[in-house]
Amino acid sequence: MRIKCVLFDIDDTLYDASLQMNMARLNAVKAMIEAGLPVDIETAYGTLRKIVDEYGPYYNKHFDKLLERLGLKWNPRIIAAGVIAYRETSAAYLKPYPDTVPVLLKLRESGYLLGAISEGKSVKQWQKLIQLGIQHLFHKVVISEEINEEKVTPKLFEKILSELNVSPEETLFVGNQPNMDILCANQLNIISVRIRKGAFMTEEPTDPRMVPKFEISKLSDLLEILKKLQS
Amino acid sequence: MRIKCVLFDIDDTLYDASLQMNMARLNAVKAMIEAGLPVDIETAYGTLRKIVDEYGPYYNKHFDKLLERLGLKWNPRIIAAGVIAYRETSAAYLKPYPDTVPVLLKLRESGYLLGAISEGKSVKQWQKLIQLGIQHLFHKVVISEEINEEKVTPKLFEKILSELNVSPEETLFVGNQPNMDILCANQLNIISVRIRKGAFMTEEPTDPRMVPKFEISKLSDLLEILKKLQS
Repeated sequence: MRIKCVLFDIDDTLYDASLQMNMARLNAVKAMIEAGLPVDIETAYGTLRKIVDEYGPYYNKHFDKLLERLGLKWNPRIIAAGVIAYRETSAAYLKPYPDTVPVLLKLRESGYLLGAISEGKSVKQWQKLIQLGIQHLFHKVVISEEINEEKVTPKLFEKILSELNVSPEETLFVGNQPNMDILCANQLNIISVRIRKGAFMTEEPTDPRMVPKFEISKLSDLLEILKKLQS
Repeated sequence: MRIKCVLFDIDDTLYDASLQMNMARLNAVKAMIEAGLPVDIETAYGTLRKIVDEYGPYYNKHFDKLLERLGLKWNPRIIAAGVIAYRETSAAYLKPYPDTVPVLLKLRESGYLLGAISEGKSVKQWQKLIQLGIQHLFHKVVISEEINEEKVTPKLFEKILSELNVSPEETLFVGNQPNMDILCANQLNIISVRIRKGAFMTEEPTDPRMVPKFEISKLSDLLEILKKLQS
């Protein structure tokens, strides 16, 4: 067998992180409006999006900033209503795609080594894997924080390849961001598979190095690709 | 009617915050042990307690510190397991005492002004009131952060009395900490009621100024006290 290892990005590859985040933000602003925020949903949602873009996802005062940006007085009751709605919605949408678990199981049972690789904070990404119920399905997990990086880089791929003791040519990677993780995989000669899901679904590669070797619209399409590659 | 207003402390007065915290810590260390933390429950729980005492409740790296203190390597998988168990247990135990809602409703319907007053962060305390389902039952809520204090002080009482437009003599306060909120209420000539619940249940006043005017073992005992005071 030529391919020994399949690596997966987490967000938008194994579950719908974009839908989760959008719904959480929408329900947060709705709850804040119900608790007395005197603006319409579009204004609140649009302003919140800009704040998240500006301050990044790990800033912990998005809702405080929203009130400030709307010219309103700080109101802990309204902020608390937003925090609760955001958390509850995030928890409700933290579910794997319907084919995630069957595909991971099938691959493990076929003898593949499975790895998860992702940008972000390690504890947060592990929380996701545990709450998605898929933490036991991976032989290795490496998150960018562990190598002091914020984003996915070739170094991150090299780390997990070395931990799994496989070469790039024996490895297939599935991710959703052409300009980031697909690019890195290509640079290392890892067989890249782009899954068209989430926020980057319609983004086209702006550089030939970002063009994936394969493209799929759902994870289960991976099984056909592996069958072809191994024959 | 002589008494017009009843003020309540939140933690351990309206719900069992001590039980919630102890169970959350216990379940967190159990989950961390199941995820691979190589110590017994007593060691992990005892060490975690010391860390919380040392770094305070708002420090957000208690579990990272626990691994460090136990001489172990940082492990995001184990920490994530602890965080999830802590949050889920906290949510499950965030329930009012059985008599909290009936007593608050009865007092409102009898025409009393109701206030909540507490040490802590405003957004966190409002989250509790909302998730306890009792936020609509109070006419005013004042949390120490709003006056830039960490603890309950006479200033906090003065602020809520002024917002509710009542005098100390017309006000009854129910709290569980003799050396803190009962002391402040007494200093201002607010009628103090100590509820024997939670972590301070067995603590005895060390100073005559901490002795409450009344003592109760459950919130519903308040109705008898008010009846006596008003007759």
